[in-house]
Amino acid sequence: VAAEVDDRAWLRAMLDFEAALAAAGVDAGVVPAAAAREIAVVCEAEAPDIAALSRGTARDGTPVPSLLAALRERLSPEAAAHLHRGATSQDALDTAAMLVSRRALVPLLKDLEAAADACAVLAERHRDTLQAGRTLLQHALPVTFGLRAAGWLDGLEDSAVRLQEVRAGTLAVQLGGAVGTLASLGEHGIEVRAGVARRLELVEPVLPWQSNRMRPALLAGALGAACGVAGKIATDVALLAQTEVAEVAEGGEGGGSSTLPHKRNPVRAVAARACAARAPGLVATMLATMGGEYERAAGAWQAEPETLSELLCITGSAVAAVRCLLEDLRVDEAQMRGNLQLTGGLWMGEALVTVLTDSVGRARAHELVESASRLALKSNRSLEEVVAEVPEIAHVLSDAQITAALDPTDYLGSASQLIESALAAHRARRDGP
Amino acid sequence: VAAEVDDRAWLRAMLDFEAALAAAGVDAGVVPAAAAREIAVVCEAEAPDIAALSRGTARDGTPVPSLLAALRERLSPEAAAHLHRGATSQDALDTAAMLVSRRALVPLLKDLEAAADACAVLAERHRDTLQAGRTLLQHALPVTFGLRAAGWLDGLEDSAVRLQEVRAGTLAVQLGGAVGTLASLGEHGIEVRAGVARRLELVEPVLPWQSNRMRPALLAGALGAACGVAGKIATDVALLAQTEVAEVAEGGEGGGSSTLPHKRNPVRAVAARACAARAPGLVATMLATMGGEYERAAGAWQAEPETLSELLCITGSAVAAVRCLLEDLRVDEAQMRGNLQLTGGLWMGEALVTVLTDSVGRARAHELVESASRLALKSNRSLEEVVAEVPEIAHVLSDAQITAALDPTDYLGSASQLIESALAAHRARRDGP
Amino acid sequence: VAAEVDDRAWLRAMLDFEAALAAAGVDAGVVPAAAAREIAVVCEAEAPDIAALSRGTARDGTPVPSLLAALRERLSPEAAAHLHRGATSQDALDTAAMLVSRRALVPLLKDLEAAADACAVLAERHRDTLQAGRTLLQHALPVTFGLRAAGWLDGLEDSAVRLQEVRAGTLAVQLGGAVGTLASLGEHGIEVRAGVARRLELVEPVLPWQSNRMRPALLAGALGAACGVAGKIATDVALLAQTEVAEVAEGGEGGGSSTLPHKRNPVRAVAARACAARAPGLVATMLATMGGEYERAAGAWQAEPETLSELLCITGSAVAAVRCLLEDLRVDEAQMRGNLQLTGGLWMGEALVTVLTDSVGRARAHELVESASRLALKSNRSLEEVVAEVPEIAHVLSDAQITAALDPTDYLGSASQLIESALAAHRARRDGP
Amino acid sequence: VAAEVDDRAWLRAMLDFEAALAAAGVDAGVVPAAAAREIAVVCEAEAPDIAALSRGTARDGTPVPSLLAALRERLSPEAAAHLHRGATSQDALDTAAMLVSRRALVPLLKDLEAAADACAVLAERHRDTLQAGRTLLQHALPVTFGLRAAGWLDGLEDSAVRLQEVRAGTLAVQLGGAVGTLASLGEHGIEVRAGVARRLELVEPVLPWQSNRMRPALLAGALGAACGVAGKIATDVALLAQTEVAEVAEGGEGGGSSTLPHKRNPVRAVAARACAARAPGLVATMLATMGGEYERAAGAWQAEPETLSELLCITGSAVAAVRCLLEDLRVDEAQMRGNLQLTGGLWMGEALVTVLTDSVGRARAHELVESASRLALKSNRSLEEVVAEVPEIAHVLSDAQITAALDPTDYLGSASQLIESALAAHRARRDGP
Repeated sequence: VAAEVDDRAWLRAMLDFEAALAAAGVDAGVVPAAAAREIAVVCEAEAPDIAALSRGTARDGTPVPSLLAALRERLSPEAAAHLHRGATSQDALDTAAMLVSRRALVPLLKDLEAAADACAVLAERHRDTLQAGRTLLQHALPVTFGLRAAGWLDGLEDSAVRLQEVRAGTLAVQLGGAVGTLASLGEHGIEVRAGVARRLELVEPVLPWQSNRMRPALLAGALGAACGVAGKIATDVALLAQTEVAEVAEGGEGGGSSTLPHKRNPVRAVAARACAARAPGLVATMLATMGGEYERAAGAWQAEPETLSELLCITGSAVAAVRCLLEDLRVDEAQMRGNLQLTGGLWMGEALVTVLTDSVGRARAHELVESASRLALKSNRSLEEVVAEVPEIAHVLSDAQITAALDPTDYLGSASQLIESALAAHRARRDGP
Repeated sequence: VAAEVDDRAWLRAMLDFEAALAAAGVDAGVVPAAAAREIAVVCEAEAPDIAALSRGTARDGTPVPSLLAALRERLSPEAAAHLHRGATSQDALDTAAMLVSRRALVPLLKDLEAAADACAVLAERHRDTLQAGRTLLQHALPVTFGLRAAGWLDGLEDSAVRLQEVRAGTLAVQLGGAVGTLASLGEHGIEVRAGVARRLELVEPVLPWQSNRMRPALLAGALGAACGVAGKIATDVALLAQTEVAEVAEGGEGGGSSTLPHKRNPVRAVAARACAARAPGLVATMLATMGGEYERAAGAWQAEPETLSELLCITGSAVAAVRCLLEDLRVDEAQMRGNLQLTGGLWMGEALVTVLTDSVGRARAHELVESASRLALKSNRSLEEVVAEVPEIAHVLSDAQITAALDPTDYLGSASQLIESALAAHRARRDGP
Repeated sequence: VAAEVDDRAWLRAMLDFEAALAAAGVDAGVVPAAAAREIAVVCEAEAPDIAALSRGTARDGTPVPSLLAALRERLSPEAAAHLHRGATSQDALDTAAMLVSRRALVPLLKDLEAAADACAVLAERHRDTLQAGRTLLQHALPVTFGLRAAGWLDGLEDSAVRLQEVRAGTLAVQLGGAVGTLASLGEHGIEVRAGVARRLELVEPVLPWQSNRMRPALLAGALGAACGVAGKIATDVALLAQTEVAEVAEGGEGGGSSTLPHKRNPVRAVAARACAARAPGLVATMLATMGGEYERAAGAWQAEPETLSELLCITGSAVAAVRCLLEDLRVDEAQMRGNLQLTGGLWMGEALVTVLTDSVGRARAHELVESASRLALKSNRSLEEVVAEVPEIAHVLSDAQITAALDPTDYLGSASQLIESALAAHRARRDGP
Repeated sequence: VAAEVDDRAWLRAMLDFEAALAAAGVDAGVVPAAAAREIAVVCEAEAPDIAALSRGTARDGTPVPSLLAALRERLSPEAAAHLHRGATSQDALDTAAMLVSRRALVPLLKDLEAAADACAVLAERHRDTLQAGRTLLQHALPVTFGLRAAGWLDGLEDSAVRLQEVRAGTLAVQLGGAVGTLASLGEHGIEVRAGVARRLELVEPVLPWQSNRMRPALLAGALGAACGVAGKIATDVALLAQTEVAEVAEGGEGGGSSTLPHKRNPVRAVAARACAARAPGLVATMLATMGGEYERAAGAWQAEPETLSELLCITGSAVAAVRCLLEDLRVDEAQMRGNLQLTGGLWMGEALVTVLTDSVGRARAHELVESASRLALKSNRSLEEVVAEVPEIAHVLSDAQITAALDPTDYLGSASQLIESALAAHRARRDGP
C-alpha cells in the first residue's frame, strides 16, 4: 500500500481531479473544450517536481497553489484561466484524499481477501484438530484449531465488509469552492460536481463536506478496526509460536538468527502487531480534527492528509503481513495434542458434571467432581485416574463411560457448526450477491 | 444518557441476559420451565447491592461471579443450578454492553433527531440570511446562515445514519461459553443463542465475538464521529457568539455571570466541546483493546466496559447540549449583515472578474480587479468606490451593473439548491422508507 | 486511590481552597479575620449535597457557582461577601485538581514503594535463579529471574522518581482571577497567592496557569508512564504464568474458578493491564486540551478534571494491583530450570564461539558452531552431544571444557552487577539524600 | 528538524553507535585497535544504500542486519568479526533513537529559545497595551497584550525547561546484548557501555532499558507538551487575527490570496495548530508501547522509531512556525483599544463595586452596580452614562471618580508584576546558572 499513498500518489490524484474538473466544466458549458483537452494533456504528463511542491507546501500550507502554478506554466493563457475553475485548494486535496484511499484500498482489500481465504483453508483443514482453548492466558477448555482459524476469518470478514461499505458509500468527491457555495460556477455548480464524481467514480455527496469531516472519520475508523483485527491474529500467532507453546511457526525465509539458530522469530506477526500498535493514535487524530472552524478549519483539517496516509499505509502493511503469515503458517498438530495434556484433563470436569447429573442430580455432581479435581490437582494425577477411584462415581459410570466423558473430542459443543457458519459467510460475501 | 450507562443500568442488562438465557434454555429443552420462571422473577426483582458487586469486581475482575452468587442465594437449588447455564462471565458482560448501548442510543438518537430538526428549521428560515463565510478564521466569501445550518444538519444526518446502522447491524448477543464452543450446551448451543438474541432484540452473530472485537470498535467509532459532529457545531456557535462577532447567542437561562453582566457564556457549546475533546482518546482505547489474546484477553477486554460507558455518556451529553443550543439559538441577522461590510466588499472581486470576462477576457479582467483591490485595501475604501473610478471598467459597466456585480446576494452559487438537498435528505431519512 | 479522586475528594479540595484563600486574604489585609474564621468553619463542616452540585455543574459548566451559593447560605452577609474573594471558578477547580492529585499521590507512591521493595526482595533472592531470557517471545539467552525483577524494579524506580519530581515541582496553586491579572485583589494579588500556596503546600507559579496547561500535561504524562511500567510488569507475569510456561503464579485468594479448578487466573496482572490499556488515550486527551483559547478555554479546559480523575484512579489501581502481585508472587525455580532445556542448549552456541575463538579463530569458530547447531536442530539432539562428536572441536576442547562452555550459569555477563546497581539505586532513592 | 529525523539521520546515528562500540571495545580490551580503526573509517564514510536498508527492514523487521551486512562487506574478516561486538539490533536502534533525538533537539531548542525571546520582546514592549481579556471567547476583563505575551513566554519556558531536563537526564545509551546481560562481553560489559556513553555523550543508565520504556515515554511526553504550548500560542494568534478581531496579523510573505486580496491567512498559526493536532495521538502510541513482552517486545517496541521520528518532526515544525509567527507579529494597538469599547464598559462593574464598598457596603454596592449594568445592557448605553444617573451612586462618587473607577488602565491588578516575573524567569534560565 505504501506506493499508493506516497507523494507521487497524492500528486497523481490531484492531477486527476483537475483534469476531471475541466472535463466536467465542458459538459456544463463553463469551460471550452479546447482548454479542457489541453489541461488533460498536461495533467496526464510527467509529474511536476515533488521537492518544489514540498517547498510550496511549507510556504502556503498546501501543495495546491504550487501545483497550479507549475501547471499554468505549461498551459496557454486561455487554458490556464480555466484550470481549477470553481475549485478551492481544499477541494483538490480532499478529493485527492478520497482517490488515494480508493486506490490504496485495492491492494489492501486484495490482501484482506487472500488472508481470509487462507483462514478458510485452515478452518476447513483443522476442523477436528484439537487445541487448548485459553482464557486469560490459561488453559480453559478444548477448542479446535479450525475454530480458532474461523474466529480469525470472522474478524477479517467483518473488516472486509466494513471497508467495502466505506469504499462504496463514504468515498465522495469534494467540490464546494471557497466557502462551499460553488459560487464561481454560477448555476452550474451541482452539474459540474456530478461530472467530476462520475469521472472519478466517487460518490456525489449531499453537501460539500469541507467542514463536515464524517467521511475521513468513518474511513479512519474502518481502517483502525481492520488494523485491530490484523493485530489480534498476529498476537495469537506470536503466542502460539512461543518456544514453550510451539503449536505454530511462521514459514518463509525471515525470522532466522545466525547466532541463535533455534530461534524462529515470528517476524510477520511482529510487523503486524507494530502496525496495529500505531493505528489507535492515528484514528484518534482523525476524530480530533472533526471540529474545525467555520467553512475551512485553521489547523484541524491540515492535520488530516499525512495522518490518513500513514493510517492507510500501516493498515496495508498489517494486513499484508497477516496474509503472508497465514498463507505460510506451519501447524504442529502433535504439539497441540501434547499441550492438551498439560492440565491432566482437569478441564473436562465440567463435561463430567453433565454426564453425572442424570444419576445423582446437578448439585451432587458438582460436589463430586470438584472434590475429585482438588484431589487430582494436589496429588498431581490425572482427573480420570482419580475419578475412577471415587465409589459414588464408579457406581454409576463404567471406566469406559468415564473415559468417554473426559474425552475432549466430545466436548466441543457447536464448534463444527460455527466453523461451517463462518465459512458460509465468507463464501457468500466473496462470491457476492 | 448518563442514567442509561450507570452501574444500575449495567446490572439491569446483566439480569436481563440471565433471564433471557434461562428462557431460551427452556425452549431448547436444557432448562426446566420452573427454573426459568424462578430465575425470571429473581432477575426482575429489586437489584442486588451495587456496592457489594463493586467489591466482587475488585476481587474477581468482573462483577458477574458476585452477581451470580447473590442471585443463587435467592433461588432454589434446582433453579440455581440452571442459572447462567452455558454462559461465561464475558457472555453476560458483552451482551450487557450491547443492551446498555442499545438503551443509551434511544435518548441519544432522540436528541440527535431533535437537533437535526432544529437545524432544518434554521436552514429553512435563514435560507436567504447573508453571512460571512470564513476560512482559516478569515472572511472569504458570503454564504447564508441557512447554508451553514444545512451543513450542521448534514453532519447530524451522517451521524444518525451511522448510529442507526450500528444499532441495527452491530449490536449482537454474545454467547460462547468458556472458550466460544458453547460446549456445556451440547448440541443446543446455537438454538439457545438464537433464543437469547430474539428475546433481547439483538443481532445473532456468525460466531461468538469474545475475541473478535469489531463490534465494540465499530460502535465506538460511530460514537466518536457523532461527538465530532457535535463538537463542530459547538465550535461554530462558540465562535459566532464571540463578543466581536456576536451573530448568534445561546438562549436559555445558563451562561450569565453576576459579576460580568455583559457576558453571555456559550455554556452549551462549551459543554459539547468538552465532551468532544474526550472522545478521540476513548475511541483509541477501544481500538487498542482489539488485539486481545486467544479466547479471552488478559487485560484488553477488561478495559472496554468503563471506556464504552464513558463514550456513550459523553456522546449523549454532547448531542444533548447541541440540541438545546440549536433549539434556543438566538440569531442576529442585522449583525450578520453588518459584519459582511468589514472587508469593504473586497471579496466580491471574484464575482466582478466573472462579469468583466465577457468584455475584456479573463486574464485582463483578473488584472483590473486585482489592481483595484490593492488600491481599495491601501486607501481603506470600498471596492465599489474604487472600481467605479477605473476607466477601463467604467467603460464597459454602468454604475448599476457594478453595484449588481458586487452584490453578495447574487454570488451565492448553489447555496439554495444545497440547502434544499440537505432538507430533502433529512426528511427522507426521518420519514423512513 | 479511587477514594482520593471521587466527587467528595474534589469537593474537599475546593473547600480547602476557599478556606485558604480567605485566610491568605486576612494576612494581606483584604479580608476581615472574622469573615475568614467563619468561612473556615463552614468549609471544614460537613459537605454540601453532591447531587445538588452535579445539577449545578450541568447548568453552569462547573460546580463552583453552586458550591459558593450553598456556602453563602450558611455564612453571614459580611463573610459571604468575602468568600471566593479575588478568585474565579477556574482558580478553585485548578487548585483543587492539584490538591486532589497531591493527595492521590500519597497512596499511589506508597504502593509504588512497596512494589519496588517487593521487586528488590525478588531481585536479591533470585540473583542466581536461572531463567530463559525471551525476545520476540522466543527463548534467546539465559538470564536470571533476579535480573528480570531488577528490570521491573528499574521501571518502578523511574516512575517513582518522575512522580516525585512532579509532586515537588509541578503541583502549583492557581490564582488569577477572571483573566489572570488578579485585578480584584488590587495590589495584594501576589501576596494572597503566596499565602494560599503556603497553606495548601503547593508550588507558587511564575504566572497564573489558567491558559498554560503544562502542569496538568506533565502530571498526566508521568501518570501515563507509571501505568506503562505497571503494565509491563503485569504482562511479564501474565506470560510467565501461562499454563505452558508456569514459572510464576499469583498468590492470594483471587483467580480461582470453581468450574475449571486447574485455572489460576492472573487476576491482578489482568487488572493492571486493563488499567494500563486505558491510560494512553486519557493522556492524549490531557495533551489535546492544552491549546485552549485566550484566558480560559471554551471546552478544552472543561475536559480536564474528569480525565485527570480517571487517570489518577487507574494509575493507582494499576500500581496497587502490581504491588499485590509482586508481594505474593509464587516463583517456581524448578520449572524455570526445566524450561531452559526446551531448546537443547542451542542458545549457548554464542558462548561456545567465544571459547573456541582462541584456538581456531573467530570466523572458523562461528562456522563450526553453526554447523553443529544446524545438525542438533535437525536431529533433535542437544548441542552438547553433537559438539562432542565434531573432531575439530573435540581436538581442542575436552568434554569437561565443552560442558563448562555450554553451562548457562557461566554465560550471564554482567547480570549480577546490574542487579546490584538496580538495588543500590533503589536504596539510595528510598533512603533519600 | 525534519532533516534531523529522516532515514539518513537514523543511519548516521546507527553508524556512530557501531563506531563508538568498537572504540569502547578497544579500551576494554575486547576489540583490537586495528579493527576499531577500520570500523571507524567505514562508519565515517559515505552511507550505504538507504533503499537497500528499507528492503532489509521489510524482511528482518529492523534495518540493523542489512546495515551490518553492508558494512561487513567493506571490512576485513578480522574487523568484520568485531563489528557490533556485544550488541543486539535493538541496542543499535535504541541508541540511535537517543542520538537522533539529541540532534533534533538542537534546532528545536534553538527555535524554542528564539520564540521565547520574541515573546519577551512583545511582553516588554506591550506591557501597558490594553487588550480585552477573554474567557469562553467572551470579553471578560481587561488585560494587557504584554501579559498575554508573558503567558505565551511562560509556556515556552516550561517547555524549554522540560526538554532540557529530558536531554540531560533521559537520553541514555542502550547496550544490553541479546537479553540485557551483556553476556558476550564477559566481564567487560559495563565498561564497554560506559565507553559508548562517554563517546556519544549520552547518559549511562542503571540497567539496559530494552524492556523498560520510560525513556522514550518521557521524551514523547515532553515533546507532546511542547507541541501543546505551540498550539496554544497559535490558537490565540489565529483568533486575534480573525477579520472581526484584527488585533494582530502574521507578517511575512505567506498567507496572501490572489483571488481574495483582503485575506491575510494566519498560515504559520495554522501550520503550528496542524502539528499540535497530531501530537497527542503519537504520544499515546509511545505510551501504549511501554508494556512489551519479556526482554524484547514482539511488536510494541517496533512501533516506536517511526512514531518518535514523527513526533520530533512535528514538534520541530510547530515550534519553528510559532517562532516565525512571533518574530514577525504585527500588533494593532488601536484596534485593541477599539475592541475594548465593544461592551460599553460593562466589565468594569466589578471595579466599581470595589470603590463603592467603602461608602455603601459590599452587598449594596453589588446591587447598585448589577441594576445599573442591566439597565445599560438593555438600553444599549455605556455603564458610565447610566451610573452617573443613579442618585445613590452620584451621591457618593463624583463624575471624575466614576470615570476613574471605570478606567480599565487602573484595573489590571498584578499584571505588571507578573510580566516582570515571567521576564525574570526567562532571563534566569537563558543566562543559566
